[in-house]
Amino acid sequence: MKIGIYGYGNLGRGVEAALRQNPDMEIVGVFTRRDPSSLKTVTGIPVYAADTAEDFTTVIDVMIICGGSASDLPEMTPCLARHFNVIDSFDTHARIPEHFARVEKAAMTTGHTALISAGWDPGLFSLARLYMNTVLPEGRDYTFWGRGVSQGHSDAIRRIPGVRDARQYTVPVPEALEQVRSGADPDLTTRQKHTRECYVVAEDGADRALIEKQIREMPNYFADYDTSVTFITEEEMKRDHAELPHGGQVIRSGSTGESGKHRHVMEFSLKLDSNPEFTGSVLVACARAVGRMNSRGIFGCKTLFDVAPADLSPLSPEEIRKKLL
Amino acid sequence: MKIGIYGYGNLGRGVEAALRQNPDMEIVGVFTRRDPSSLKTVTGIPVYAADTAEDFTTVIDVMIICGGSASDLPEMTPCLARHFNVIDSFDTHARIPEHFARVEKAAMTTGHTALISAGWDPGLFSLARLYMNTVLPEGRDYTFWGRGVSQGHSDAIRRIPGVRDARQYTVPVPEALEQVRSGADPDLTTRQKHTRECYVVAEDGADRALIEKQIREMPNYFADYDTSVTFITEEEMKRDHAELPHGGQVIRSGSTGESGKHRHVMEFSLKLDSNPEFTGSVLVACARAVGRMNSRGIFGCKTLFDVAPADLSPLSPEEIRKKLL
Repeated sequence: MKIGIYGYGNLGRGVEAALRQNPDMEIVGVFTRRDPSSLKTVTGIPVYAADTAEDFTTVIDVMIICGGSASDLPEMTPCLARHFNVIDSFDTHARIPEHFARVEKAAMTTGHTALISAGWDPGLFSLARLYMNTVLPEGRDYTFWGRGVSQGHSDAIRRIPGVRDARQYTVPVPEALEQVRSGADPDLTTRQKHTRECYVVAEDGADRALIEKQIREMPNYFADYDTSVTFITEEEMKRDHAELPHGGQVIRSGSTGESGKHRHVMEFSLKLDSNPEFTGSVLVACARAVGRMNSRGIFGCKTLFDVAPADLSPLSPEEIRKKLL
Repeated sequence: MKIGIYGYGNLGRGVEAALRQNPDMEIVGVFTRRDPSSLKTVTGIPVYAADTAEDFTTVIDVMIICGGSASDLPEMTPCLARHFNVIDSFDTHARIPEHFARVEKAAMTTGHTALISAGWDPGLFSLARLYMNTVLPEGRDYTFWGRGVSQGHSDAIRRIPGVRDARQYTVPVPEALEQVRSGADPDLTTRQKHTRECYVVAEDGADRALIEKQIREMPNYFADYDTSVTFITEEEMKRDHAELPHGGQVIRSGSTGESGKHRHVMEFSLKLDSNPEFTGSVLVACARAVGRMNSRGIFGCKTLFDVAPADLSPLSPEEIRKKLL
């Protein structure tokens, strides 16, 4: 199966790394809106200008789109789905129905298959919620994120005047996690579920107290959380915060039997050293399924909910049943 | 969707309980090889003789077969798949290819859809292994079971002369679990992964030391494990060991990136108060998918690997995307 990578930031490099672990896949090239000659890929795969992508419609089986959800993907995915089978990791939950409709229309028009919102949340966490909800119709879902770097929150801090660099970690509150795991079905406020740890490099002479106040009081991002702010040097930032770890837990606690007397707790958890490499790995597995579905005549916009798990695997159905069932 | 329950032991009652939580499903009746008049169902649903099942082929959309894997299912499932869409929880791993082939042949002949080996292991744990292996091709799988009652091991103890009743709990070794969760990729022997706790009611005057020795030395079942044997009274057995809890963990630890520098740990875990009610709940969700697949003309033998997750849910695709993605 021949794969294109559209966009080459952290996620694009994560996809590139994942493709090396999947010998049934081959990378055709990276497509970038930057000057192709300015860009050197980790594994030396060729780089092309984004606007030449249409020259590759007959060579690429699936294009993996590695853009941002805020402004890139709403344009890119419908546009590319007219010419390619595509995957994206669109994660703006509220706008998924609208994005789905536009991609569906584009893909159906030309007989392509698109899979949106792949990754781990949305993605594997969504799958966990679906399986758990179908098996335990009477129960409650909980999702915890972290400990991990939230790039959106880090960016929000960087926009504050006087901040040179910042890294924000989302951290689940251990007591809340334990309560949920015990099956106690607690009502938890935003503040009770997660704390936020901020590491900030300030400009020389910046008012640190003011920066800290602006972070703590920032609506939506920090005001509803217990937030810690630690000022560090640029060297400490490079040394201790260069990686992008993440993870989290989806937990469903439910009951069965007369008067719900039997309690059950289901949990899916991830502990990831590199969020972009793991997300890239999910996208690559999804690319395999999208290619297969398209060759079977299954067109239009899909999510992981529509993908039979066997289609994600390089193994044959017989091998899967033998090794994994 | 109209459901029949074929067999009415612990699992049959578990399916009955689960069906009450799924208002889109209706129970037609229970089919038993015992005298139907001798059997009273928990929720008062009608009971029919197993050999009259064929009179219900036009009324039942999916038959959920609740028999044992050792001798019931290898006969029942292929036989019933000639007349019904069926589900079973066949769990003899080594014999799955053979069972699959027989059920496939029967179902294809008559245009039915069968799903075998549903439940949690095989079933949800198999799905977890598949998703994890496709996302992290380079890594190791670990499965732990318990703390929970193993009915096969309890039965094996009951067959020892002088034993009136017995309950065996399989218990993961906490240190092994922690090592795996840390991403250390340990090599673990059978003994290092699980211990076995046995609670035994002995006949009056039985030689307890001999019973204990026979349990500890029993090949396959106990000889490879650290096994504890505790003698209890019949009253204690009834009071403390009446339930059938179970659970476990599937963990995959893998790596991505240059020289595998980034480690990732994925875990799916279950903590169940009632193994049969939870397993019954999985079968009921699968019944929904089997009915839908059959109405779409997808025939033959399937496993959960072949089921698009959305087909398990009572919600519409739009609702699933909105609520769970």
